[in-house]
Amino acid sequence: MLEAIKKRRSVRSYLDKDVSDEDISALVESARLAPSANNMQPTRFIIVRSPETKAALVAVDHDQQWMMQAPVIIVAVADPSGWADRPLGSYEQGAPADEQTPGLYLKYIIRDAAIAIENLLLEAEDRGLSTCWTGWFSQADVRPLLAIPADKYVCGIITVGYSESHPQPRPRKDLAEILMYETWAE
Amino acid sequence: MLEAIKKRRSVRSYLDKDVSDEDISALVESARLAPSANNMQPTRFIIVRSPETKAALVAVDHDQQWMMQAPVIIVAVADPSGWADRPLGSYEQGAPADEQTPGLYLKYIIRDAAIAIENLLLEAEDRGLSTCWTGWFSQADVRPLLAIPADKYVCGIITVGYSESHPQPRPRKDLAEILMYETWAE
Repeated sequence: MLEAIKKRRSVRSYLDKDVSDEDISALVESARLAPSANNMQPTRFIIVRSPETKAALVAVDHDQQWMMQAPVIIVAVADPSGWADRPLGSYEQGAPADEQTPGLYLKYIIRDAAIAIENLLLEAEDRGLSTCWTGWFSQADVRPLLAIPADKYVCGIITVGYSESHPQPRPRKDLAEILMYETWAE
Repeated sequence: MLEAIKKRRSVRSYLDKDVSDEDISALVESARLAPSANNMQPTRFIIVRSPETKAALVAVDHDQQWMMQAPVIIVAVADPSGWADRPLGSYEQGAPADEQTPGLYLKYIIRDAAIAIENLLLEAEDRGLSTCWTGWFSQADVRPLLAIPADKYVCGIITVGYSESHPQPRPRKDLAEILMYETWAE
C-alpha cells in the first residue's frame, strides 16, 4: 500500500490517449466503497468528456489550461440530503452551501467526499493513470455549469488521463513534525 | 488497490495484542505522503497508549467502551496555521475552530486531514491491522484532554489494533446512484 501512496503524484501534463469507461467505473467503484459517517455516502461523481464542458470548468478553475489535455474530468460533489433529519448534522434543506457556510453537516460531507476521492486517486495510480485534484474555483461559478443544485458542495475537479510525466515528489514535513505522543506538543 | 479498499472494515472488537511502534510509524508515514491543498500538510497525529488518556477520550466519544480494547488510539488533528496569511483561506489566528465555525480554511484542513487519514486506514488494512475512525465527540470536550489549542480541529479518534473480527460489508449505493455523465442528474 505504501508503495502506491508513495508513487502518487499530482500530474499536470497528459498524453493524447483516451481513458476507457471501464477504468472510469473502477475509479468510482473505489470511491463507492469508502467509509462515511453513518454510512451516509454523500459523494457523487460527474464524468465530463465534452470539450465544451471541460473548457467551461477549466475557465472557472483559475483557467488552468493544462487541464484541457486530460481526456476526462471528474467533478466530485457532496450531497448533504442524508443529514437533513439528523440531530447532529441537521441543516435547512435547500440552503446554499458555500465557502463561508457554517454547519457541521457541511464539514461531515466534505470529509467524507475527501475520503472517497483519495480512494479514487490511489486506484487511478494503481491502474497506470495519472490525476490531479484541483480546487481553485468557487461553488457559485462551478454549479451552474453542471446544473448542480445550490445545496450541494463541489469538492474537487479532478483531471484523469495517461501521462509520461512523473514529477519529483513534493517536499513533506518530517515524521517528527506531525507525530506526537500522548498529548499535543508544539 | 481495489482489493485493499474492498477489504477495509470499521472494526469494533480487538484482540489483547499490542501494535508495534514500527507499525504506527508506517501508518503515519502513509498519511504524511498524502496530497494537500498548496502542500500545506495540516494534519498532526497524537498516538495515545496511556489507559487513563484512552478512557478519557472514550468517555467524551459517546462512551463507546469497545474502543478501550484497542491498544492504540490515534487522534488526528488539523492545524490551520499555514493558512493564516493566505488570501483564500485566511482566518483570525487563534480563533476557536468549532463545529459551527464558518470559513473556507476550516473546510480545506478537514478535507486534507480526511485524505491523510484514509491513507492511514488503508495502510493499516494492508498490514493486517484493524481500525475504526470514530467522530462522536465535540471539539470542546476532546481538546482539553490532550492540551490541543482551540484553533485546531480534531478530525477523528481512530482505534488501531489486531482483530479476529471481519464484519460483513456495509451496504453501499449502487454505482448508478453516484455516477453521472456530463451533468448533474437527480
